[in-house]
Parts: sequence; structure tokens; C-alpha cells
Amino acid sequence: MNIILANAEEVNSQRLTLSDNRAKHIVKVLRAEVGDQVRVGLINGDMGTGTILAIKSKYPFSVEMELNLSRQPHSIPPLDLILALPRPIMLKRILSQVTALGVGSIHLINANRVEKSFWEAGILKPEEYYTHLLHGLEQAVDTRLPSVHIHPKFKTFMEDIFPSLAQNYHHLLLAHPTGEQQLGNVIGCKNNRIALAVGPEGGWVDYEVKKFQKQGFHSCTIGERILKVDTAVIALHARISALREVSKVSES
Amino acid sequence: MNIILANAEEVNSQRLTLSDNRAKHIVKVLRAEVGDQVRVGLINGDMGTGTILAIKSKYPFSVEMELNLSRQPHSIPPLDLILALPRPIMLKRILSQVTALGVGSIHLINANRVEKSFWEAGILKPEEYYTHLLHGLEQAVDTRLPSVHIHPKFKTFMEDIFPSLAQNYHHLLLAHPTGEQQLGNVIGCKNNRIALAVGPEGGWVDYEVKKFQKQGFHSCTIGERILKVDTAVIALHARISALREVSKVSES
Repeated sequence: MNIILANAEEVNSQRLTLSDNRAKHIVKVLRAEVGDQVRVGLINGDMGTGTILAIKSKYPFSVEMELNLSRQPHSIPPLDLILALPRPIMLKRILSQVTALGVGSIHLINANRVEKSFWEAGILKPEEYYTHLLHGLEQAVDTRLPSVHIHPKFKTFMEDIFPSLAQNYHHLLLAHPTGEQQLGNVIGCKNNRIALAVGPEGGWVDYEVKKFQKQGFHSCTIGERILKVDTAVIALHARISALREVSKVSES
Repeated sequence: MNIILANAEEVNSQRLTLSDNRAKHIVKVLRAEVGDQVRVGLINGDMGTGTILAIKSKYPFSVEMELNLSRQPHSIPPLDLILALPRPIMLKRILSQVTALGVGSIHLINANRVEKSFWEAGILKPEEYYTHLLHGLEQAVDTRLPSVHIHPKFKTFMEDIFPSLAQNYHHLLLAHPTGEQQLGNVIGCKNNRIALAVGPEGGWVDYEVKKFQKQGFHSCTIGERILKVDTAVIALHARISALREVSKVSES
């Protein structure tokens, strides 16, 4: 935890009292004492510091602090992810990692090569995936939770749901090993929003590629090497961020 | 496995006979039959196809094929990684992932914030880490194994070993959250070799940063967000690759 996150409802006139794993972290890892300041943020809210007023450093741990939250949350990251539902164990890691990297929303969709059993995984319950999103925020020192949307029907998502979202984006990118374009040719200009679609292990089937293209997606490759989905998602996010920073410099 | 990898010693006048998990993969996943061609490569050697001459599709599986290896291996990836020894479970994943992304050599070094117990991990034995490197090659369809070097003494590596390697590199990059430079300002030009140093969870200590700087490393940041080592390594690799491709285009 590089930041202690709390819900607004836990705070009472700038006071926050913790008695769970966050208190344990403050005691055992940060080794904080009365008077010390720790980094604190409200989920989907401001961040700042908490000054420790009282601490119980033996089990059961508890920490009371006074908050001074003067820093606004980061702006919404300019990238949204459309991801063919991956294997549950991989999805957990991807949720934390993309939240740490920064993502606005995550759409988990079906695809031909998604194993049916993945749709029964516990990780698709909000109370379960929430934990992994939170880990990503705690890691990256952010407070803004990505929104997660689950679409078990590919066709419904592509035909009924995505068209109403499309107008939010300046770039629609479909990651595809045999894509015709290089990312660098497609991405430009500042913080315009991008929707990035990443397929399942084995890739999108032709029907799916055509559906995305019909919605205006450009099929892009990042090279010959075939990557696992978890590696590909991070690599694509990082490449897009780097290309944006370069184009910002060259435009300014 | 996107490619079946074999050692040169397993091949006898262009014939390769398999009876281990590779045979199982050909039978169960690829569902290949006599006459079919599968992608085959020799470790640190050429790649091409294997035409199946005989197959035993029930346990114990076996496959005999005739090889036609006409494609040379990829050139050595232009990035070498210097990595403060991470937690063993994370190291396994990083080894596969960076091998899939492409890396020339991997130096695992000590650092102040590396837990001592990590040095006793089984994964540091060649027969154990080899498996994870192989997974990366099988994933990315490559045959060239990265070389792995283990340096349990930070000072020895920095003072006695690295200076003789330094001349191989055009860019020396130290990933550091408070680095003064953006990656994009440091990287340019084609496939000049880069050494990238990535610290442990919690980062490099000042003494270590100074040692790297003394060897000519530029301390670089990829933004405010604090990333876990496994996420950071992939993100840095991807950003460097993207920036290189852009600079190649603008120079040509």
C-alpha cells in the first residue's frame, strides 16, 4: 500500500479510525507512530495526508488519524479497455495492473475463443473484483476506481452497447497480431480518449475482427512476437502512453 | 506453445522424435495428424516446419517428424535488463514475459531492498529458470535464449563487472520514480543497444543510484504512478520499443 484508501462514509469530521488490514499495514510496514503523517485518499475522492492521533500497535491493531485531503484526484485516464474475458487467475492480475497503470473503464466481453467456464468465475462478482482494483490504486497512489462492465454476449455488446459509447473516443484500436497498422501511425494528439480492444489467447476470430472494424476500429499490431494476454495488455498500454507523450512534445 | 522447440542434439539427419509434453501438445492441442506441418525451432538455432511422419495419439504420446528449418533466428534483441532480484514467484513470471518480449541478457543483481531470502530461491538454478525462459520463447515464436547472469554482490557488479560491459551500450537507463529525465528524451536512433536497470520493490537507495550514475546511467521516470516491478519491467520494455520505432520512422 503506497496510499491508505478509505470510503467517504468511514470519515467523521476529518477523523478516520481503522482497525483492519490498513491499521496493520500502518503499524507493521510503515511503523508509524503518533504524530507521523501517512498518505491517505478517499476512494473516488481527494487525497492528502493523515496525521496519527492514536495508535494501538499490538493485535488487534487500530489507528486513529486526522485527515488533510487537499489534493484532487487524477483526471480520468484517457484509455478504456475492452477485453475478451481472460482466465480468472490472469484477470485478477490484469485488473490490478491496468488499474495501477491507469484506465478509465474496463469492459469484459465474450469472444469465440473465451472458455465458457470463465463466465462462472467468482472474480466477476463486484465484491471480488473490487479488491483487485483497490490493490492497483493502493499501488499507484490513485483514488479513482475504474468502472467495470460485464458483457457476456459479444453481439449485444458490439451492436447495442458499443455504438452509444463510440462517440466518446477519438481512436478505436483493435489489437490483432496480423493488424495492418502500427500503433504509432494511428495514435496522435494529446489526451484524446482511446478505446483499446484486446482479444483472448488465440486471438479474435475473423467475424469478431469484422464486427470491430464495422464500428470503426483500426486493427493494429505491435510486432511479430505473440504475447500472452496479460503481457500484451500492459505492453499496449505502455506503448500508447509513450506514443502520446512523444506526440504531445512534437505538437507543443 | 506457438512453436515446438528442440535441442540440436535431439535431431538426427533432419528427423526429430518427441515423446514428452511436446508430443502431448502436438496431439492434444494442435490435434495434428500424419502429413501435417507444425512450427519447429532449434534452441539458439534456426526455425521452420516439421512434417509429421508418424504419430501415436494415445498415451504414451510420440511424434516423429522431418524438419525443414530454413529461417534464421531473430537478431539479438537490442535491450539487456539489469534487475534487482525480485521475489521468486514474480521472477518466474518476469523471466517468461521479458523473454517473450525479447531481451538479450538478464543480469540479476543484489540491492539494499532485496530480501536476503530471495537469494536462496530454487529459481536461481539454471535448470529451473531455463524452463521459464523456454516458455517465453515458445510463446513468442523465437529460438534465441537470453543469457542469465547472477550477481549476488551489488558492489562487485557495479565496480568490477559492469565497466567491462558498458562499451556494448549506447544508452544506459536507470528506472527510478524520481528520475530527472523522461524516457523519450533519452532514447533515440535505431537498434543501438540499451541496458535498462530496474530496482526492487521500494526502489533503489541513494547509494545505488549514485553508483549507477557514476557508470553513466541516466535516471529516468515513466510517470508519477508507482508500479510493481513486474508491471514496470514490461511497461518500460514496451515504451522503449515504441519510442525506438517512432525514432526510426522520423530518421528514415
